[in-house]
Amino acid sequence: MEDFVGPQVRKQSADHHETVRCGDVEIGDGRFTVIAGPCAIESLDQALLTARVVKEAGAKIFRACLFKPRTSPYSFQGMGADGIPILEAVRAETGLLLEAEVLSLAHLELLHDHVDMLRVGARGMRNYELLKEVGRTRKPLILKRSMSATLDEFLSAAEYVLMSGNRNVVLCERGIRTFTTYTRNTLDILAVPALKELTYLPVIVDPSHSAGRASLVGPASKAALAVGADGILIEVHPNPAAALSDGEQSLSPPAFLSLMTELKALAAAMGKEV
Amino acid sequence: MEDFVGPQVRKQSADHHETVRCGDVEIGDGRFTVIAGPCAIESLDQALLTARVVKEAGAKIFRACLFKPRTSPYSFQGMGADGIPILEAVRAETGLLLEAEVLSLAHLELLHDHVDMLRVGARGMRNYELLKEVGRTRKPLILKRSMSATLDEFLSAAEYVLMSGNRNVVLCERGIRTFTTYTRNTLDILAVPALKELTYLPVIVDPSHSAGRASLVGPASKAALAVGADGILIEVHPNPAAALSDGEQSLSPPAFLSLMTELKALAAAMGKEV
Amino acid sequence: MEDFVGPQVRKQSADHHETVRCGDVEIGDGRFTVIAGPCAIESLDQALLTARVVKEAGAKIFRACLFKPRTSPYSFQGMGADGIPILEAVRAETGLLLEAEVLSLAHLELLHDHVDMLRVGARGMRNYELLKEVGRTRKPLILKRSMSATLDEFLSAAEYVLMSGNRNVVLCERGIRTFTTYTRNTLDILAVPALKELTYLPVIVDPSHSAGRASLVGPASKAALAVGADGILIEVHPNPAAALSDGEQSLSPPAFLSLMTELKALAAAMGKEV
Amino acid sequence: MEDFVGPQVRKQSADHHETVRCGDVEIGDGRFTVIAGPCAIESLDQALLTARVVKEAGAKIFRACLFKPRTSPYSFQGMGADGIPILEAVRAETGLLLEAEVLSLAHLELLHDHVDMLRVGARGMRNYELLKEVGRTRKPLILKRSMSATLDEFLSAAEYVLMSGNRNVVLCERGIRTFTTYTRNTLDILAVPALKELTYLPVIVDPSHSAGRASLVGPASKAALAVGADGILIEVHPNPAAALSDGEQSLSPPAFLSLMTELKALAAAMGKEV
Repeated sequence: MEDFVGPQVRKQSADHHETVRCGDVEIGDGRFTVIAGPCAIESLDQALLTARVVKEAGAKIFRACLFKPRTSPYSFQGMGADGIPILEAVRAETGLLLEAEVLSLAHLELLHDHVDMLRVGARGMRNYELLKEVGRTRKPLILKRSMSATLDEFLSAAEYVLMSGNRNVVLCERGIRTFTTYTRNTLDILAVPALKELTYLPVIVDPSHSAGRASLVGPASKAALAVGADGILIEVHPNPAAALSDGEQSLSPPAFLSLMTELKALAAAMGKEV
Repeated sequence: MEDFVGPQVRKQSADHHETVRCGDVEIGDGRFTVIAGPCAIESLDQALLTARVVKEAGAKIFRACLFKPRTSPYSFQGMGADGIPILEAVRAETGLLLEAEVLSLAHLELLHDHVDMLRVGARGMRNYELLKEVGRTRKPLILKRSMSATLDEFLSAAEYVLMSGNRNVVLCERGIRTFTTYTRNTLDILAVPALKELTYLPVIVDPSHSAGRASLVGPASKAALAVGADGILIEVHPNPAAALSDGEQSLSPPAFLSLMTELKALAAAMGKEV
Repeated sequence: MEDFVGPQVRKQSADHHETVRCGDVEIGDGRFTVIAGPCAIESLDQALLTARVVKEAGAKIFRACLFKPRTSPYSFQGMGADGIPILEAVRAETGLLLEAEVLSLAHLELLHDHVDMLRVGARGMRNYELLKEVGRTRKPLILKRSMSATLDEFLSAAEYVLMSGNRNVVLCERGIRTFTTYTRNTLDILAVPALKELTYLPVIVDPSHSAGRASLVGPASKAALAVGADGILIEVHPNPAAALSDGEQSLSPPAFLSLMTELKALAAAMGKEV
Repeated sequence: MEDFVGPQVRKQSADHHETVRCGDVEIGDGRFTVIAGPCAIESLDQALLTARVVKEAGAKIFRACLFKPRTSPYSFQGMGADGIPILEAVRAETGLLLEAEVLSLAHLELLHDHVDMLRVGARGMRNYELLKEVGRTRKPLILKRSMSATLDEFLSAAEYVLMSGNRNVVLCERGIRTFTTYTRNTLDILAVPALKELTYLPVIVDPSHSAGRASLVGPASKAALAVGADGILIEVHPNPAAALSDGEQSLSPPAFLSLMTELKALAAAMGKEV
């Protein structure tokens, strides 16, 4: 089976679980944390509209990406530094915590003081130089699994961060690459309880990138909750059809609000709190 | 995306769903049907001990395999025809319905009058000659997805059965082959809602073969329920450590009873009935 | 690494290699055997036209399929028993040896006395009941690797045949299912030398099904020769654009003749004979 | 099939092929270029011993890695900047051209003036920020395919480099991640002619990382030549058993010299020059 789980991420006992704190939100330990927002910040209006929906639904952390790694160099690459005032405006109006992806040391330096939580995406999971840099901060970090990573490779990436000094790591399953074509990736739902057998770190799920279709994002989110995940990182857009990226997998505001209601009912039956 | 969905299995409208009846059990339509039993029938004692647990837990259909397709020709291949009196004894004592796998026309002829439900396993999904034969019966059939089948290949296999005359087909997701190693296969949990977008046939999940580890069978079963599956096909053994096959993924009686309790609570929160 | 190699297929020493005889053709041992013909026999004319090209190119064995396993039940399924007189006509005119796929015991009984070599295809590799039946004959057999089989699963399928009494097995790598899309399957070219490290059986390659595009069939065939394969099983059609199946991956007669010339030159440089 | 090939890497006509010049070596156009050396520079002695063998065998470019991306943070990470004098010593004694991997902008700045050819490895292929930086240099670059990249994703990564100004890109197939276990990765040998149908850039193969076993590196190299690759990037170590990384897939000096002899004979039969 899995070859190696590093000493920093390894569980000390069967019931060893730790939480990661981001602002006043405690990730792990019976809570199901929802981090929601657009694939990318596109404008002040788009950001504020989405943030209000996220807040109304009861989520506390806003997905606020300014840099997007895109397969094609001709696709929208994010607003970059120009979006920083938008982040500040979202925070000022809504009080939501902000979470954003970093692709390089330069992004890390730029965003560090403007966001509450960092993300290293699937493409960055094998960028060990970046992981070491993120490990030198103390910011809470969402580390997404590479679409081709085994669990021990995923945990070894987390080990790079922890051994560099940052223990505030939340793991995120987001789908793996397989032969299937109906979904964008194959959500490896059993990776959640599997990771919880190996490490004490919280584990969340990205239902949007695994499904790749808005119609499957709800089922993926409910499966994440049922299987024992500590939360989801989910894409919401005020007008998915007009989104500059990932529109086909973004939930509209009504769909998101409706899903949140379903999740709360399911969580209650499981003794969990959304 | 998916290339082709045959006319026999294709949905006629977005809310088109049909049920499959096995004895007095109706699979689909808001019910979560549990089909449980050992990987293979090993002896009268083993079969009766398991069947009593299955009945006590409230399940109605007993997994009753006499023929096992095994990778190695030197592994236990099932009791074969010698097990038929055991099936009859289980039925006589417990009143459970019986479900069993057929690997060939010879098995089909032998088992047809002794079981209530047939199964074509993952290895048999591409055996189109067998599918045509099963299609000539009217027995309810569980058709498992090949570990390498796309959804349209899976539905095309079902099309072989339906076009041969048998419309009583229940599809079963059981995990696909990917690069991962911690689980035996990768449970493609989103295949369940995806299939329900394409076909009206009921869809169940085999949590045992996808997980390959007893510790993950519970989470897989709960994910199946949450994602919208119509049931599970699950392995239970009175003494997993002594099982002649699949012991590592079989639930013990207490683990199975405990899981059934959890599933009932979760189903209630979803307006479903186990 | 690989878990298990059965006692019947396992090499006895590092340089243990055996040949399989089909008529006057010895497969293995420094020869590169070309088995060529259409995906399926479609008519007397098509069969004879192709067979003449195959003979002219110097190949000795004719691919002569009457039964085709097709993903869709609505695709051409082969001529079936009606094609037997065509096989006899090809043999009478050209003297070529005949090779054909069997999908069931019924096919085996029908074809046994009309062909010189049997084939169990990729979909049949996990049909152990069929393998046992083929193992009760003494016909040379091409056993193709399932698109999802590891090497030990492939060798275990061969073990089923050998332990049933038939030692005349030739293994055939034909591409595996992966995430790639440009080719129909991913030709696992290193499976050839890998298998030769594990077993003494001859190993050939199907360049047509792995490539799925005529333009890549030549490179695949040359790679097979260079990597140490004992031959190829290749699709040739007198008019690929009009083929009832697999036209896009079939070579035209001029392309096949040209490839054979290239293979002969390459083989000579390697001390092999086509 | 493949979705998108960027305008910078796309072929202008069926026979459009370009070469990439590194020092006095022209990669492409009928030559089979061998780039050889240890997985990582470990010491002056190790580097010089290997470089002498590489030169003796007739190769012109030395694989000279100072930075190693390793799955585990506890594995040897390369000599780093301390190895630069070793590179200079190799160049001074042997006159070989030097090729090395960069993992970050910092590495790029450090190595730029000390090597003749840069490499972005499989893990770096999705690090678009790094690709843009490498694109701002004019150094010849080997861009390796990510183990999970489709061909259009691979070509899109190359597009990032070319659109940033650097047209001296050589693509390198190095094996993809699949379900197989005998080899370290699955060498996607048909990616070579497939890429040559889509782009004019030279394409080489890394036989070492795909095979993962020294015994299969020779067959992989011969397959690369036969399939039409423009060269190989291959690992050689004076004492594989004592290597600090990748010893199991490194060729010993005698094995490498013997393989080079075989490759020269095969190339001659194909009208190519090693």
